[in-house]
Amino acid sequence: MAFKHITSRDNPVFKQLRKLADQSRERKKTASTLLEGVHLIEAYHQVYGEPRLLIIPEGHSNDEATALIQQLTDVDTMLLPTLMFAELAPVASSSGVMALVDIPAATLPAHCDFALVIEDIQDPGNLGSILRTAAAAGVQAAYLTKGCTDAWSPKALRGGQGAQFILPLMESVDALEVIAGFSGKTLALTMQGASLYQQGLQEPVLFVVGNEGAGISAALQAAVETCVTIPMAHQGTLALESLNAAAATAIALFECQRQRGLGT
Amino acid sequence: MAFKHITSRDNPVFKQLRKLADQSRERKKTASTLLEGVHLIEAYHQVYGEPRLLIIPEGHSNDEATALIQQLTDVDTMLLPTLMFAELAPVASSSGVMALVDIPAATLPAHCDFALVIEDIQDPGNLGSILRTAAAAGVQAAYLTKGCTDAWSPKALRGGQGAQFILPLMESVDALEVIAGFSGKTLALTMQGASLYQQGLQEPVLFVVGNEGAGISAALQAAVETCVTIPMAHQGTLALESLNAAAATAIALFECQRQRGLGT
Repeated sequence: MAFKHITSRDNPVFKQLRKLADQSRERKKTASTLLEGVHLIEAYHQVYGEPRLLIIPEGHSNDEATALIQQLTDVDTMLLPTLMFAELAPVASSSGVMALVDIPAATLPAHCDFALVIEDIQDPGNLGSILRTAAAAGVQAAYLTKGCTDAWSPKALRGGQGAQFILPLMESVDALEVIAGFSGKTLALTMQGASLYQQGLQEPVLFVVGNEGAGISAALQAAVETCVTIPMAHQGTLALESLNAAAATAIALFECQRQRGLGT
Repeated sequence: MAFKHITSRDNPVFKQLRKLADQSRERKKTASTLLEGVHLIEAYHQVYGEPRLLIIPEGHSNDEATALIQQLTDVDTMLLPTLMFAELAPVASSSGVMALVDIPAATLPAHCDFALVIEDIQDPGNLGSILRTAAAAGVQAAYLTKGCTDAWSPKALRGGQGAQFILPLMESVDALEVIAGFSGKTLALTMQGASLYQQGLQEPVLFVVGNEGAGISAALQAAVETCVTIPMAHQGTLALESLNAAAATAIALFECQRQRGLGT
């Protein structure tokens, strides 16, 4: 491996890493992104193998990070001054190691009986959280509309905790096409509709979830077979009760898995 | 109403508002907090009546904020320069109005058949999200351990979207005492345990949820009747699949409501 100590912000590799940290366009153009923290890098390594580059801050690596670096001795490593390292990290309290990796190409399953369409979720933490829940529920394909934030941004990766590595993920899809092409039940999670619990979810099913502020677009609501809702305890009493998009998605996806006999 | 235009950071009322924005101790001492945004202020007004003070930025109120201000003409109003207003707001993109309000005293129900103990959730957004889900599920009492972040901080209020106003909430509780005093089933949501779906949840039930990093403390795991888990699709295949605390709580609380016949 090569080991480099970079101290200048004008270093071309550092400038390229900054672009990757900040710009979705650059990530898409180069099909690469940055992972922050031992957990994410280990998860990536487990699924796809070695990262292209490890990035560590001067004097601040903890035991976990050190163990990871020792395990990946074949990987090129870049040592940065603390402040320069912090400019790449998605959150202030960093775990002492980052990695440059290739964004894997998604392989969609030939036959899919559990799919998720995500419409226009703009907050990276929210999107990450939804992807994490979808991976845990065993969703086989996640389709993201153009209006969604970049699923491979450092913040979305942090929220997903590795979900992006195991959940086949298609970005910038035409959701109408995906819905029309799905062989099975198509359901949109809305604020008003038939009770989720009255749906038979053992056959192949595709859920559409959307931005909680705007709701699911009229076009997608019209395209699905059924609009469903999660009944709330005090619906109507006060205007306060509602679920955020990530919580609603968790309830719907795991209701599906419950009906299919997971854990019984 | 009194209308004041404050432009000095040395103004004692402004200094007091800054303390409330930043310090949990000050909020507890004075039993008051700041609400940000039309939605939260309207929700508070609906449940508890008028706020003590409205705070608006120079020249930046939008139509919604203006309508709210016109509706609350009896409330004292403070106009602040944009930068001073921003110092009080929990997020950068503010919705143009804040309010100073009393923190309501919690009234616990005489008989509780749906309770939630929250152990050591430190992220305010996460805590807010869990409280929001609990309110939507119809939880009748939420008990927070000392290790939880302040449920009345501006960020937790933002995450809760008004849940704090309708969900009876006790902070800094002795969770062991709460569990021992509960008449019904007590369950801890853990990573390993009996399947959630095999539990009968129609009788009175208390759930314990904890910090996903540390898990639920051994003391609380020992104190409850049963440790339960939400079965994941690929458990064991890879170490990646897991749920965040807010998603796990949503699934458990709504499984309880499903068994009780909500929405069927």
